[in-house]
Amino acid sequence: SHGSYQGNEFPGVVTGLAWTAQGGEILFVESSQSKGKGGLTLTGNLGEVMKESAMLALEYLKSHTDELNIDSSVFENSNWHIHVPEGAIPKDGPSAGITMVTSLASIMTKRKVRKSIAMTGEITLRGRVLPVGGIKEKILAAKRAGIKEIIMSEENQKDMEEIKEVYLKGLKFRFVKTISEVLEYVLLKK
Amino acid sequence: SHGSYQGNEFPGVVTGLAWTAQGGEILFVESSQSKGKGGLTLTGNLGEVMKESAMLALEYLKSHTDELNIDSSVFENSNWHIHVPEGAIPKDGPSAGITMVTSLASIMTKRKVRKSIAMTGEITLRGRVLPVGGIKEKILAAKRAGIKEIIMSEENQKDMEEIKEVYLKGLKFRFVKTISEVLEYVLLKK
Amino acid sequence: SHGSYQGNEFPGVVTGLAWTAQGGEILFVESSQSKGKGGLTLTGNLGEVMKESAMLALEYLKSHTDELNIDSSVFENSNWHIHVPEGAIPKDGPSAGITMVTSLASIMTKRKVRKSIAMTGEITLRGRVLPVGGIKEKILAAKRAGIKEIIMSEENQKDMEEIKEVYLKGLKFRFVKTISEVLEYVLLKK
Amino acid sequence: SHGSYQGNEFPGVVTGLAWTAQGGEILFVESSQSKGKGGLTLTGNLGEVMKESAMLALEYLKSHTDELNIDSSVFENSNWHIHVPEGAIPKDGPSAGITMVTSLASIMTKRKVRKSIAMTGEITLRGRVLPVGGIKEKILAAKRAGIKEIIMSEENQKDMEEIKEVYLKGLKFRFVKTISEVLEYVLLKK
Amino acid sequence: SHGSYQGNEFPGVVTGLAWTAQGGEILFVESSQSKGKGGLTLTGNLGEVMKESAMLALEYLKSHTDELNIDSSVFENSNWHIHVPEGAIPKDGPSAGITMVTSLASIMTKRKVRKSIAMTGEITLRGRVLPVGGIKEKILAAKRAGIKEIIMSEENQKDMEEIKEVYLKGLKFRFVKTISEVLEYVLLKK
Amino acid sequence: SHGSYQGNEFPGVVTGLAWTAQGGEILFVESSQSKGKGGLTLTGNLGEVMKESAMLALEYLKSHTDELNIDSSVFENSNWHIHVPEGAIPKDGPSAGITMVTSLASIMTKRKVRKSIAMTGEITLRGRVLPVGGIKEKILAAKRAGIKEIIMSEENQKDMEEIKEVYLKGLKFRFVKTISEVLEYVLLKK
Ligand SMILES: [Ca+2]
Ligand SMILES: [Ca+2]
Ligand SMILES: [Ca+2]
Ligand SMILES: [Ca+2]
Ligand SMILES: [Ca+2]
Ligand SMILES: [Ca+2]
Ligand SMILES: [Ca+2]
Ligand SMILES: [Ca+2]
Ligand SMILES: [Ca+2]
Ligand SMILES: [Ca+2]
Ligand SMILES: [Ca+2]
Ligand SMILES: [Ca+2]
Repeated sequence: SHGSYQGNEFPGVVTGLAWTAQGGEILFVESSQSKGKGGLTLTGNLGEVMKESAMLALEYLKSHTDELNIDSSVFENSNWHIHVPEGAIPKDGPSAGITMVTSLASIMTKRKVRKSIAMTGEITLRGRVLPVGGIKEKILAAKRAGIKEIIMSEENQKDMEEIKEVYLKGLKFRFVKTISEVLEYVLLKK
Repeated sequence: SHGSYQGNEFPGVVTGLAWTAQGGEILFVESSQSKGKGGLTLTGNLGEVMKESAMLALEYLKSHTDELNIDSSVFENSNWHIHVPEGAIPKDGPSAGITMVTSLASIMTKRKVRKSIAMTGEITLRGRVLPVGGIKEKILAAKRAGIKEIIMSEENQKDMEEIKEVYLKGLKFRFVKTISEVLEYVLLKK
Repeated sequence: SHGSYQGNEFPGVVTGLAWTAQGGEILFVESSQSKGKGGLTLTGNLGEVMKESAMLALEYLKSHTDELNIDSSVFENSNWHIHVPEGAIPKDGPSAGITMVTSLASIMTKRKVRKSIAMTGEITLRGRVLPVGGIKEKILAAKRAGIKEIIMSEENQKDMEEIKEVYLKGLKFRFVKTISEVLEYVLLKK
Repeated sequence: SHGSYQGNEFPGVVTGLAWTAQGGEILFVESSQSKGKGGLTLTGNLGEVMKESAMLALEYLKSHTDELNIDSSVFENSNWHIHVPEGAIPKDGPSAGITMVTSLASIMTKRKVRKSIAMTGEITLRGRVLPVGGIKEKILAAKRAGIKEIIMSEENQKDMEEIKEVYLKGLKFRFVKTISEVLEYVLLKK
Repeated sequence: SHGSYQGNEFPGVVTGLAWTAQGGEILFVESSQSKGKGGLTLTGNLGEVMKESAMLALEYLKSHTDELNIDSSVFENSNWHIHVPEGAIPKDGPSAGITMVTSLASIMTKRKVRKSIAMTGEITLRGRVLPVGGIKEKILAAKRAGIKEIIMSEENQKDMEEIKEVYLKGLKFRFVKTISEVLEYVLLKK
Repeated sequence: SHGSYQGNEFPGVVTGLAWTAQGGEILFVESSQSKGKGGLTLTGNLGEVMKESAMLALEYLKSHTDELNIDSSVFENSNWHIHVPEGAIPKDGPSAGITMVTSLASIMTKRKVRKSIAMTGEITLRGRVLPVGGIKEKILAAKRAGIKEIIMSEENQKDMEEIKEVYLKGLKFRFVKTISEVLEYVLLKK
């Protein structure tokens, strides 16, 4: 089912974690790149805050090309599209920030994303990863979906204490401070 | 009546299946291509989610030109228009995704669509076909309209169980995982 | 009075039939063409669905230039404006579709429209003429206004049965399947 | 007071007649022309229908340049601005149509407008002048403001019967069918 | 305090008078000019009518360059920004018209504004200055703020009668008919 | 925690002070610069007034390039993005004005911002710093976050009297009249 982790066969596809009234859920962020003039379009029934995360992700990458070995001319001759299935479900909030920046970085570098990983965290323009809510529900959803490793903000480490050990079994956690740490770890060598 | 299947004499015309409060219904997705700069315009009283499906369909094709033997310069010197009759009826939801991507692929390749087929399914940017609702009502509508074969997501196969065999008589079903499978099957050789 | 048929002295002026809470009414669709880049502007207090009909009419003509002997460069160096008097009255619905496509085709070809004709019908992108509502009221209004011939969708023929013969006296009816049939009949030779 | 007729010393300034809940009133339509690319901007707290009248006025002039000896290149290298004082008062409706087309024609031709005239009437794209409401109140307002002659649609002639003769004393009336008649009469030779 | 007159050391800064539910108040209109293509941007929590005053001010100057010795190429290679502090307070109405046109004329000509003056009045496209409301409250506010001279429409002279002489002490008044009179008086020689 | 002062290692990052229903809070304004045509984009769930502050900050810098030794061609070949974390929290009001102008000036000049400073104040186009509300709450928040020095409008000095001395211990205050004073003090030499 599309509620399960689906492998990492394509660059640009990254697994995130959402938290809704119905509980935690995994979600996929998909990016494509085409000829253009630097435009960014978005689909997937996204709210304003989530759209801002996507803009932020693109701006971050524009000013960190060196770090990722991205030829900065790509920002003048490409467009990007980010889609978050499923279209019928409204989505919002800043917590897909690291998922989006990873998705765009993956499609720009053509580097696939490390297997069996999900991530959740707000990003800032200078590259910090901020904590987000719903950690417990997100962990349960990740486990159900077959995820093996979860990336979160260092500031979410405190939320782990309230989660029973049995739920954490079989999951690795990686707590990060910056987008750089995320990209360095999850983007695979070509 | 325009509630019946109408043949496949034009590229760009594809039969979909809608599900409304009044039950299932067939619908037609029509595309035209003209000189332009890559623009996409939409008519037919479409809601936001359905408009996003059309954007998604175009983005998918932009990044899968090789597979369909589409000259990618077409995205720089053409515009597309997608219309879904009838104009007085508001339409929404993601389930026309495969109908739209098939319609655009058909008009771009000038390949007509296989006869007597209807389809329903959400699409994603990486090319998956997701399950949709209202399968029973859609099947009844397709049959009434003279459809012989229906294409759906593999994940909708489970919905078949709750439909009495008598309703399925005379209909073939094709369950798919990807947009590629759809296009390969329904787009006829020129 | 402006509630009467007004002759066909100008290309671009076509008589349609509207159906409102107050009953049937004739309306005029007027088009003008000027230098431009393919733009379409609309006035006359038109609702979204009626605006979509105008877009659709223009798209149809873009992809049927051969049939009408229209030089397709016109779509790159002209703008069109469609106005539907009277400005104080909100208008909506798809039924002016054939009136709009006839008006644009008339102004593009500089061919005037056959005399004493009114028309009503939704159009589709592939060129079909779909049935519309309010046929009885529209026929009464046409007769009052001095119209001699009415063009409608073949699928509206069934609505004629419920109209008393006395109302039909002096009126000819032309039932059509396609926009082509309409344009071939009503656009006069130059 | 700005409630009085103010002479015709500038091209582009034309006196209209409005009808509000407070009764009739004169209004001024002012146009200016500057270098540009054919744009039209509007101020004066105008509603959608009144904005459409201004668009219509410009479109009419675009397709009637011969009649007015307007060099049609003006539509490619000029912008126009129409203002209707006073900014605090919302204004709407189609009845300023002839005032607007006269104002634009005056500024384009640099021909001033005949003295002591006010006008009211809706316009159509093909150049007809349609009747409008509030004739009695508008006539009273024109008289109070020192107007000597009023231009209206021929179809408003019937509204004159219900007005007592004493109110009409000292006023001339000119009933017109077309914009051409208006412009020919009111635009003075340079 | 920013509630006091603040001198005239910068071109583009002009003192206006506002009238709110809290009484009269002085306000500042500030303009800046930069390289551009004739654009006008506005900040300061301005309502639609006040934004229209700014557009009107710019249009007036475009068609009166001779009078002010403005090189008209400035309208093709400059942008303007008008700000009205304070950002937290919504502002609307047409009465800042003369303040805005003076501010823009000052920044375009680099001529500073005569000292200790405030002004209030609506403007029209042909250059008239129309009367505005709240004269009494505005005069009190001007006096409190240290203003020495107030410019208003000639048609506001009648509002002076209802103001006790004691409030007018130390204030000069200049009643004007046109924008020309305002600019000629308040813009200082370079 | 991101509720603490975070050092000044990047140009473009500046610490501001916000005042919400929950009390005072520090916030970060982050700017990035990329190739472009002078555009400004904003994220962080900002209200209209706060967006206007950002526009104002950019306009101020455009007309004060000399003072900051900014090559004015930067306004023709760069875009800027300003983000204010955290995305889930709506933010509004003019008090981040000096934080924004400092952030943009820092990124344009590549000069970092003096350490351990926070600031709050509205700005005007001519460069004044206006007083803002919530001073007491902002001071407490700054102290909690480890700030050592606070910059405010001279007109906020009066608000200091109502704050107990114990809260002010360990904090320096700098009261300013103009943006120039702020930038001269806080932007470090390269
Ligand atoms: Ca799901
Ligand atoms: Ca996420
Ligand atoms: Ca139907
Ligand atoms: Ca479908
Ligand atoms: Ca009528
Ligand atoms: Ca019609
Ligand atoms: Ca008045
Ligand atoms: Ca009028
Ligand atoms: Ca104040
Ligand atoms: Ca004022
Ligand atoms: Ca916080
Ligand atoms: Ca601040």
